[in-house]
Amino acid sequence: MQSLGCEVAALNTVHFSNHTGYKQVKGTKASAQEISDLYQGLRQSYLTDFDVLLTGYAPSATAVEAVGEIGLDLQRRADKKPGSFFWVLDPVMGDQGRLYVNEDVVPAYKKIIHHADLILPNQFEAELLSGIKITSLSTLAEAIKAIHKTYNIPHIIVTSVQLATLSHSSSTTAPPSTLTVVGSTTRSDGTPRLFRIDVPALDCFFSGTGDMFAALTVARLREAVHAAGPALRGTRSWVSPDEVEATDLPLARATEKALASMHSVLEKTMEARDAELRTAAAAAAEMGEEPPSSDEERAKREHLRRTKAVEVRLVRNVRFLRDPVVEFKAQEWSE
Amino acid sequence: MQSLGCEVAALNTVHFSNHTGYKQVKGTKASAQEISDLYQGLRQSYLTDFDVLLTGYAPSATAVEAVGEIGLDLQRRADKKPGSFFWVLDPVMGDQGRLYVNEDVVPAYKKIIHHADLILPNQFEAELLSGIKITSLSTLAEAIKAIHKTYNIPHIIVTSVQLATLSHSSSTTAPPSTLTVVGSTTRSDGTPRLFRIDVPALDCFFSGTGDMFAALTVARLREAVHAAGPALRGTRSWVSPDEVEATDLPLARATEKALASMHSVLEKTMEARDAELRTAAAAAAEMGEEPPSSDEERAKREHLRRTKAVEVRLVRNVRFLRDPVVEFKAQEWSE
Repeated sequence: MQSLGCEVAALNTVHFSNHTGYKQVKGTKASAQEISDLYQGLRQSYLTDFDVLLTGYAPSATAVEAVGEIGLDLQRRADKKPGSFFWVLDPVMGDQGRLYVNEDVVPAYKKIIHHADLILPNQFEAELLSGIKITSLSTLAEAIKAIHKTYNIPHIIVTSVQLATLSHSSSTTAPPSTLTVVGSTTRSDGTPRLFRIDVPALDCFFSGTGDMFAALTVARLREAVHAAGPALRGTRSWVSPDEVEATDLPLARATEKALASMHSVLEKTMEARDAELRTAAAAAAEMGEEPPSSDEERAKREHLRRTKAVEVRLVRNVRFLRDPVVEFKAQEWSE
Repeated sequence: MQSLGCEVAALNTVHFSNHTGYKQVKGTKASAQEISDLYQGLRQSYLTDFDVLLTGYAPSATAVEAVGEIGLDLQRRADKKPGSFFWVLDPVMGDQGRLYVNEDVVPAYKKIIHHADLILPNQFEAELLSGIKITSLSTLAEAIKAIHKTYNIPHIIVTSVQLATLSHSSSTTAPPSTLTVVGSTTRSDGTPRLFRIDVPALDCFFSGTGDMFAALTVARLREAVHAAGPALRGTRSWVSPDEVEATDLPLARATEKALASMHSVLEKTMEARDAELRTAAAAAAEMGEEPPSSDEERAKREHLRRTKAVEVRLVRNVRFLRDPVVEFKAQEWSE
């Protein structure tokens, strides 16, 4: 976000030594009280004039509630000036059919998300929120419509849909090596404006790509809305007039740029990973690492090494964040 | 540091809502145990292959010890490969004759700093470490020599020396509106190579400039050492050969660039402050701020508003970090 010119204040919800992809981590989680206290600290010094809030992982149901209170308070303060505040909420709950938070986090999110302007669920989270099992393009559309309607959320992006794994999918189904992102902004009658973007999937598991997508989308959406002119900027929740087509939405523009940046950075990351893995063993020995004492230890080391090798190379590839080349365009999509 | 291409891992020693210039803050300080745990987390996953460590404020004497252990461990791991690890230590203890840490932090720093490669004390901290009261250019030189010798530290930069306020200063004294930064890298016989850089002082109190200077200096020193070639890069503590003059030291080059970047960013910050203060009252009313209930409350609000207005505008001025124009050059300085 900073590389795209945003002044950012971070309120950390965990203080961890590393991401959880390593399967071992030290550090602490922020309590709901700590999260609230930090916000109260900002408030008491009149430091809450944010125009966008991006919320992500919160480590407990009470932490989700605390985050919800912050979003609500910021919204209340901006109430007299439509469009001056926008809340992007990533309802981090799980992936690939598996929850990685406590079960009580799900109802906690269901209580707060109707205040958000844009939510960024993955396929599994969209199922949890909509109650609809996504098995095809049409059930995906149903889930999006249900989320728009149930929670009154104007913008949705469902990240990382594996259309190839959907049974009974239509003839527009992408090949297995394609990642599909679908988005929608409601019209004034509540109907969705659906678009989809197909991106070649990279055969690699990265950590932090959800956060990278969210951050890039926030910065690019803000930019696209500003480019659209003062009328949209002054409209509550930045909802474009009904005549704007799905593929011309600021949300579609932002998603295209975010995905273009990500695709380039992740391609470069894979190249760097390959180079690193070729020399990793020698580097470890040089660092004075002792040889593994058992097969189990050897497998663990191998996992740690591979996880480190695939850390997203963000800083050295910042040019792709700043100047993405959009190859994969948003397409109309009527289910 | 990221804007200059460094991949950075941050280990936060406080989790605060805002900087302490506001005179009110909420949040928590990391305990020594939490600091050590985070480092152990990095270690257990083999994530400690850093080439530079920058340490700053630590909230207690035990936290300083924990930071010292981290520096020592990283140093030990790089021991077989001279120049592959470099520790920049900012001994944050106080300013302008006043301690802002507990008294036991001073001896804690005295115990660990002999492991550092470069320290960045301000005038007051240089006095605390050297035991020499700095009242003139020659006592300043004495203090630097004492620090080189007592703690065996190869590089020192004394930030923000107010030469105008030094009594009995020599004819080279700068005008009152000048800020002087002095630095030195030892020769092989332990004698200092002293340089000074005079920068026009800006009539404004900024917060975070110490950290900004440290971060820029780290990135620029690494760059200057790399530019100097593989011999210096492979030399313990990056100490240049004796024939390199003070003003040609990588440390001098790095300090010039860091100060040039800072001067531009702070000038831009003052312009932005002036603009913000002209509209601050209207903006506050728009945010729904209630009018102050007393003179005391009014004065407090005014302080908070002025403090916010002078927040360093870093992100929007990142071009000055990347491409500084060096106007103020390092000068030879023999006391």
